[in-house]
Amino acid sequence: MNSTRDIDALIDLMARLPGLGPRSARRAVLHLIRKRALLLTPLADMMQQVAATARECLNCGNVGTSDICDICNSEKRANGELCVVEDVADLWAMERSGVFKGRYHVLGGTLSALDAVGPQELRIPQLIDRVAGENISEVILALNATIDGQTTAHYIADQLEDKVRLTSLAQGVPIGGELDYLDDGTITAAMRARKSL
Amino acid sequence: MNSTRDIDALIDLMARLPGLGPRSARRAVLHLIRKRALLLTPLADMMQQVAATARECLNCGNVGTSDICDICNSEKRANGELCVVEDVADLWAMERSGVFKGRYHVLGGTLSALDAVGPQELRIPQLIDRVAGENISEVILALNATIDGQTTAHYIADQLEDKVRLTSLAQGVPIGGELDYLDDGTITAAMRARKSL
Ligand SMILES: [Zn+2]
Ligand SMILES: [Zn+2]
Repeated sequence: MNSTRDIDALIDLMARLPGLGPRSARRAVLHLIRKRALLLTPLADMMQQVAATARECLNCGNVGTSDICDICNSEKRANGELCVVEDVADLWAMERSGVFKGRYHVLGGTLSALDAVGPQELRIPQLIDRVAGENISEVILALNATIDGQTTAHYIADQLEDKVRLTSLAQGVPIGGELDYLDDGTITAAMRARKSL
Repeated sequence: MNSTRDIDALIDLMARLPGLGPRSARRAVLHLIRKRALLLTPLADMMQQVAATARECLNCGNVGTSDICDICNSEKRANGELCVVEDVADLWAMERSGVFKGRYHVLGGTLSALDAVGPQELRIPQLIDRVAGENISEVILALNATIDGQTTAHYIADQLEDKVRLTSLAQGVPIGGELDYLDDGTITAAMRARKSL
């Protein structure tokens, strides 16, 4: 490699981002060097800024810039509904849809026997505390429709079933979804949950 | 979106990298926030460093941290062979193969009637100057096997045919193939079997 040590080091760091391998990291770094003023410097500055300020909400696990996030701080979001998601990315997806007006609880993953992830490794004890302490009327289990996601949903349901109304997202054909592209499980679930027109 | 302004701004900047869309940019930023000490801060620091020091070699167009790059500065590379590539990524791919011991000339693209890229938009005048001024015995046209790459190679060959020995990489570079996608062995074989034009 003739590129200098710093450029190589930057490529190595970029290659550790999810979705980027060594080749796309090299392309990205060349792009950054070409767009130094427009992209590289602003990106470096914003990374410093986020590194200095980003933190997890102590209440729900959302990512923000204060100890308690905007959603937990907003009285308008205290409608008694609590949406349980695996990951902050799922919370962001829910927020983009705009359909949910309550608060969240981010587990930080799913139970997994294989990876030795038990309830204590997730934010499950904190969830049980919140249901006991906050004025919550409904817990919506918005976990992914994977085996680990559903195992986790069942575990949480067992813990909370006498304490609060529990719901989960409906399963079915996604809007714009083509049957031919869907897996059998989705088609089966959509068929079983079919509704009269 | 409930994520704060800085985090959103960071996602927007990351989404402008080649190979990352909005979704992968969100994933990358969450990953960075989780790996703040191990990845986000080092990445921000290294970006600042590269933004401050990276520049194009005034002689060949390679990227480095000085006005004249390591390869152009190395007397060992002055063997009379000059390898013409489209892009710095192609130069890096050649260097990874280790087969070429001479110097480079990075065009910065290809001629393209459609995109109105003429010889003046590339480093073609500088290439002709280098052939006239440096002690060059062979120019190896290592351009991509695309229509624009081959058009550019023919144009350069027309300009230099009376002045220097011209060669191109051997067949073995697949039709439509780009150097940066090839494994080292293919590049080595193509370089060793290069032919006079
Ligand atoms: Zn919160
Ligand atoms: Zn150079």
